[in-house]
Amino acid sequence: MAPVVCFGALVVALVFTLRTCHVVALLTEASSRQSFSGWGMQETDYNMRYQALLRDEVVARLKQLGNVSDANDFLQRTFLSPAAVKAGHLIEAWMQDAGLLTWVDDIGNVHGRLEGANVSAPALLLGSHLDTVIDAGYYDGALGILTAIAAVKVLNREGKSHLFPHPIEIIAFSDEEGVRFQTTFLGSQAVAGTFQPHMLDVADKRGITVGAALQSASFEGTVESVDKLKYDPASVWGYVEVHIEQGPVLEAQGLPLGVVEAIAGQTRLMVTIRGSQGHAGTVPMNLRKDPMPAAAQSIVAIEQLCTHSEKASGGSHGTSTMSTAANSAGSIVCTVGEIHSWPGASNVIPGEVIFTVDVRTKDDSLREHTVVSIEHSIQTICKGRGVSCTIERKHEAAAMSCGPGLSDRLQAAALTAMQELHPFRRSVSMVDESQYDTIFAPMLVSGAGHDAMAMSHLTQVGMLFVRCTGGISHSPAEHVLDDDIWASSLALLRFMEGVLGDLSFLNM
Amino acid sequence: MAPVVCFGALVVALVFTLRTCHVVALLTEASSRQSFSGWGMQETDYNMRYQALLRDEVVARLKQLGNVSDANDFLQRTFLSPAAVKAGHLIEAWMQDAGLLTWVDDIGNVHGRLEGANVSAPALLLGSHLDTVIDAGYYDGALGILTAIAAVKVLNREGKSHLFPHPIEIIAFSDEEGVRFQTTFLGSQAVAGTFQPHMLDVADKRGITVGAALQSASFEGTVESVDKLKYDPASVWGYVEVHIEQGPVLEAQGLPLGVVEAIAGQTRLMVTIRGSQGHAGTVPMNLRKDPMPAAAQSIVAIEQLCTHSEKASGGSHGTSTMSTAANSAGSIVCTVGEIHSWPGASNVIPGEVIFTVDVRTKDDSLREHTVVSIEHSIQTICKGRGVSCTIERKHEAAAMSCGPGLSDRLQAAALTAMQELHPFRRSVSMVDESQYDTIFAPMLVSGAGHDAMAMSHLTQVGMLFVRCTGGISHSPAEHVLDDDIWASSLALLRFMEGVLGDLSFLNM
Repeated sequence: MAPVVCFGALVVALVFTLRTCHVVALLTEASSRQSFSGWGMQETDYNMRYQALLRDEVVARLKQLGNVSDANDFLQRTFLSPAAVKAGHLIEAWMQDAGLLTWVDDIGNVHGRLEGANVSAPALLLGSHLDTVIDAGYYDGALGILTAIAAVKVLNREGKSHLFPHPIEIIAFSDEEGVRFQTTFLGSQAVAGTFQPHMLDVADKRGITVGAALQSASFEGTVESVDKLKYDPASVWGYVEVHIEQGPVLEAQGLPLGVVEAIAGQTRLMVTIRGSQGHAGTVPMNLRKDPMPAAAQSIVAIEQLCTHSEKASGGSHGTSTMSTAANSAGSIVCTVGEIHSWPGASNVIPGEVIFTVDVRTKDDSLREHTVVSIEHSIQTICKGRGVSCTIERKHEAAAMSCGPGLSDRLQAAALTAMQELHPFRRSVSMVDESQYDTIFAPMLVSGAGHDAMAMSHLTQVGMLFVRCTGGISHSPAEHVLDDDIWASSLALLRFMEGVLGDLSFLNM
Repeated sequence: MAPVVCFGALVVALVFTLRTCHVVALLTEASSRQSFSGWGMQETDYNMRYQALLRDEVVARLKQLGNVSDANDFLQRTFLSPAAVKAGHLIEAWMQDAGLLTWVDDIGNVHGRLEGANVSAPALLLGSHLDTVIDAGYYDGALGILTAIAAVKVLNREGKSHLFPHPIEIIAFSDEEGVRFQTTFLGSQAVAGTFQPHMLDVADKRGITVGAALQSASFEGTVESVDKLKYDPASVWGYVEVHIEQGPVLEAQGLPLGVVEAIAGQTRLMVTIRGSQGHAGTVPMNLRKDPMPAAAQSIVAIEQLCTHSEKASGGSHGTSTMSTAANSAGSIVCTVGEIHSWPGASNVIPGEVIFTVDVRTKDDSLREHTVVSIEHSIQTICKGRGVSCTIERKHEAAAMSCGPGLSDRLQAAALTAMQELHPFRRSVSMVDESQYDTIFAPMLVSGAGHDAMAMSHLTQVGMLFVRCTGGISHSPAEHVLDDDIWASSLALLRFMEGVLGDLSFLNM
């Protein structure tokens, strides 16, 4: 933040001088928008003012950024890789184009800041990550950075940014996916102040540590240099992140936007069932101690337990009704993603079957209760079959709640954006005109981790989810409709205007 | 066989001359054994005459052969490997020590022959295989060769072999496990006349074909040279093989010996279930098309179907009662040995789960019925869950029945051997003296394939199964009690004496 503080006094003076006329402009704009919502505005006028910046430019930049890759045939940008550095330069240029003062911090995060009406007020942080998984799509991470730049650019162009009651800072975090170091949140943890010094010693597959990688990229790479990146909680008002949903709920609802209520807590189990290995042809069924049907019965039981827990907690069970998504926040999800047998031959009764269980929900006590039920169920099945069973808890993370205040604002903004775009039949597919009044922004639980999870240790966080085709993510098939991108950047703009609309600074 | 034909006339003349006194000797021996069975014989006398050759020498040779390996740290002898050739030399020497005329045929089988009372009578073939799996035990294959050598050695030493109504030929087959070429029965198929010419073109991992491997080992390796190995069915009376059970039934019964009624037919399926891959945290349970619980439910259903089929067919369901093993011949076994998911990450809902199903039973119509039920069940489960399913039949082999005449003789011989050893509390663990009259040789179904399966295309076959500890096989932990080895070679001796006891040649 340091580089921008020197501009503070000047900005405050300017804002104070310009305040009155800007308020007038703001009210005029609000009135104009109101008349549009009331069908009084021409589509062409509206398009000219918003579509170019909030949709088309974002779409073009997503594509441009999606071509910045360390690989020739697919998208891959890992922490501090050449492509990640190049992407950072692009993002920095786009931040400057939006009127932001930019810098790159000592962990590779790219920052762009605009002081608003009150340089000493706690800042609104916006952002997401610039790194990707291997063979990634264009939208994961990039969408949150580019919609923030677009919304701030419009806010700035329309002369409202000087009135904004908080400094606005966009951060493009350098590591969220953790591909290179099997870490996550290196960038956002540094800003949030939860970066652990030992993380600098974590090595990649070639034995290069995080610290050495930072030094190779001309950063200091020391505990002290990273420690300096920590933001003072008093200097921050909140963190807002736009991200693709990476799931199918919004698509099933026919809605482009949703608001994240919480990021689910997670328990990861590794279950090892051991029996008696034997020849598939020579051991009668009744003399077997076969871990395979024990594992299979356990997996069926896990599904039943989680579906039951989901029902008990009011989880989603319809498919595409409006009410479903509204309830989906209460759901629990259980996944057996990995399974293998030993020795793993078609003519051998396995001696061992190992599988993973991933349990996630926003409700930590429900998660614990479900995990205990799963453990009990597996043990009972194994005991009944005379096979032994070991269950290890490999990972556990508590749920994180988004700030209710921020979430309410984001929900209102998302609703406004969807209603505004609705007359053009855009972004709200599957909802016809007669259903205009039933459009809503559902509250969702994020099962995936996001930078917001790290940032929640620093400040209140809010997240806007954007519909992605088929719920597909971490794949080149990842896709977001152009008009949904428009809806999301428009919602971010309306969110900021909403904060501005409080006009709380007038009472300072 | 050619090398021994020239001895025929001489042998016939000798046998004819010696016939009378040998018959007297035989009756004396039978009477002596009778008195032992009636507890009139001293243990020491009995041991001196049988234990040294039928037990101790076999045990010592099994150990010696078990140390002939291509690997330093474990046992491995593949088709025509240096260790297999060395093992062949050892076996040949032991055959000669037993009084057999030996030769190695053009596919690497080691033969030892003794003409008996009638050189032109069809031959009794005894044998098993000299090759092993990787990291094998001492007993699989070797036991059948060495007990045959021991029994014939005793028969010969006691002067009975010249009276035997059939030529006796022991064959140590060169390939049963099929490790090197992913084939099985190269040796026994050549003898049985079912060796397919294209088999010579099958290549190992280094690209060396069976034909080239034969040529490297100084064999001709041509279609013609292998074709010459085919025995005329009229020249063979039957094939008898001693083999470890490779299953736990005999151990559960507390009995050292059983007789194989049939070798099970087999169907091998590969099941591929495809759903929608997704993020483990972001897709609600009700919106998933998860192939994992579909696979799990299928595996549970397969187990239930096979247990039901087993019950319906009168399969074994007790654990260690005498009646169980008697019924086990009716059972069906189903195994899911191999399973994996794609992409196989704990935090990803799999897009695909693949597993194998192995179904075996002696009853081909029951097998077909069960496989159809399994296929139907999997398809129904997948349809109900909205996932797709492909089921491929990768392998199918019909069941083979052992010759009832040979099996009856083997059963009587095994019973005699167990009863003889019983007074010494040997070989019949878990059966106390009061249960002497309840000892029996159960009829079993072999779920594993054996050379007898190939030989059944040439002649009637019989198999004697020997208890192995824990049913463990294809492992260095494979073990057979020394006294069970004794029981098996004694049973083979008594089997041949039983054939001899028919004295059918006196009516020639």
